[in-house]
Amino acid sequence: MSKEYVVGVDIGGQSAMIGIVDRRANILARSRMDTKVYGEADAEKFMDDLCANIRKIAEHVDWDNIEGIGIGAPNGNYYQGTIEGAANLPWGKGVVPLRDYIAKKTGKPVTVTNDANAAAIGEMHYGNAKGMTNFIEITLGTGVGSGIVVNGQMVYGHDGFAGELGHTCAVRYNGRQCNCGKVGCLETYASAIGVARTAREWLDMSDEPSTLRSLEVITSKDVYDAAIAGDSIAKKVFEFTGQKLGESFADFVAFSTPEAIILFGGLAEAGDLIMKPIVEAMEANLLSIWKGGKVKVLRSGLKDSDAAILGAGALAW
Amino acid sequence: MSKEYVVGVDIGGQSAMIGIVDRRANILARSRMDTKVYGEADAEKFMDDLCANIRKIAEHVDWDNIEGIGIGAPNGNYYQGTIEGAANLPWGKGVVPLRDYIAKKTGKPVTVTNDANAAAIGEMHYGNAKGMTNFIEITLGTGVGSGIVVNGQMVYGHDGFAGELGHTCAVRYNGRQCNCGKVGCLETYASAIGVARTAREWLDMSDEPSTLRSLEVITSKDVYDAAIAGDSIAKKVFEFTGQKLGESFADFVAFSTPEAIILFGGLAEAGDLIMKPIVEAMEANLLSIWKGGKVKVLRSGLKDSDAAILGAGALAW
Repeated sequence: MSKEYVVGVDIGGQSAMIGIVDRRANILARSRMDTKVYGEADAEKFMDDLCANIRKIAEHVDWDNIEGIGIGAPNGNYYQGTIEGAANLPWGKGVVPLRDYIAKKTGKPVTVTNDANAAAIGEMHYGNAKGMTNFIEITLGTGVGSGIVVNGQMVYGHDGFAGELGHTCAVRYNGRQCNCGKVGCLETYASAIGVARTAREWLDMSDEPSTLRSLEVITSKDVYDAAIAGDSIAKKVFEFTGQKLGESFADFVAFSTPEAIILFGGLAEAGDLIMKPIVEAMEANLLSIWKGGKVKVLRSGLKDSDAAILGAGALAW
Repeated sequence: MSKEYVVGVDIGGQSAMIGIVDRRANILARSRMDTKVYGEADAEKFMDDLCANIRKIAEHVDWDNIEGIGIGAPNGNYYQGTIEGAANLPWGKGVVPLRDYIAKKTGKPVTVTNDANAAAIGEMHYGNAKGMTNFIEITLGTGVGSGIVVNGQMVYGHDGFAGELGHTCAVRYNGRQCNCGKVGCLETYASAIGVARTAREWLDMSDEPSTLRSLEVITSKDVYDAAIAGDSIAKKVFEFTGQKLGESFADFVAFSTPEAIILFGGLAEAGDLIMKPIVEAMEANLLSIWKGGKVKVLRSGLKDSDAAILGAGALAW
């Protein structure tokens, strides 16, 4: 007989969220653990602590009634069940055998995928992609991630790492240096860090007055607040960011022609400030067969904090 | 009981090829018809003549033993069974109801897809993609087409038009004007016409001696012959073309991470002249997880003239 609950785990550079999820996508209990305290040699310690935290939160339900554990993580590999070469996890830069280790230690089946894929799976089951068989989820956070669904299936590619649209080239010449080692990646423009970088560059290049000039450190949230308050440079930063995203989206459409591109994460909260320039730039760069709103650009229908847990959980059913 | 033969039809701007194909991919008979004689108002006349040609070539076998008809055509839509907005077919610029018309007239089931998808299906069944579940076929002809296979299935997208990688942006600023109306499309650099255009531009910009200077009209074949003979400008044209392709391929890998990208069509015949710069530029632009030959770049295993007929035929089984 099938069981009532799964555990969904969302691992990030700052923290990991753990939730107990039922078949109706209710999160019955959740807990949080710090991930940034684990150093390069601490992968095993992290996994031991994660297992302990899973056991602890599972006390809310009957352990035998847990079907399995789904984990979304940066550079999570669905085929291998590993984290591999994760730039933002000191303990995840090598190959971490997450699936096999946790499965052995908990006695439950474990499924691993990357964090953006988990968000896409959550969106497909519980969010704005319900009923869609072709869509792309773009996660706009510290980095830019993506989960691609074609013919109702996740695109994992030949090796399990497919869907790294944040590292497609947005600016070929004189592009920005990316953490990944490449130059001009979409992520260097459209992530939270990219937005702050654009703001700093533009403040340096002009004499235009801006409330941002008084700040020692500028975050994308500061740029958003300034734009909402009418700051001209801040508004232009969002226009530029949206333009870069929209140009790239037009190429994504030429690839898999999704019904919708769905934006998830902090930057998507900026609403029209970012959505309007995205749609304009995308439409301007589409082949005529796709122009005129044929491909929707939507905001995620999931609460930021829930999507990855729900998506990871959905993996485990 | 299932039947022994299918009809495969490959429609192009110059001609249409029709073949009778058996289950072992033998082409038992083939014929050719001119397509460029049909004007804007001649879509119905073209379809009538195509049906007559199919009937005629089918005399080689028993008509009742024909399972169906598969057609590959520019802007062929798998879902709708139409040709729609085909820039290179005067009679195909509107919406041509190919599937329904031919099916009614012949009494056989008809399946339509675009020409590059048909080549990919041929490659998967009979060529170098045999056994692969994730690969991309790139057709390098007058234009640049693509057929994408993910999880063993063609990527048709939400509307049946997915996989137009020739119209992803290769050069964002000061890119070349494309026939499609956009600027900087890969097709403007990597098609046969793009190669000739590069050669002409470079001859104009330099004083370097070149055997190409004596030609009134330069074709990609001329550039190839000159490069093979050691002409320095011609060799650099191939390096540049390969670089543009390789840079774009790196972005395609970030999307669907295929086991291989397979090149089909005239330009692929240039061998190392084009393959070497493609692989170099692709590797230089890949994320480190994919570097080092993890994604193969291969030439098609199909004869140019057979691939689309076999692919279109495979659609009909």
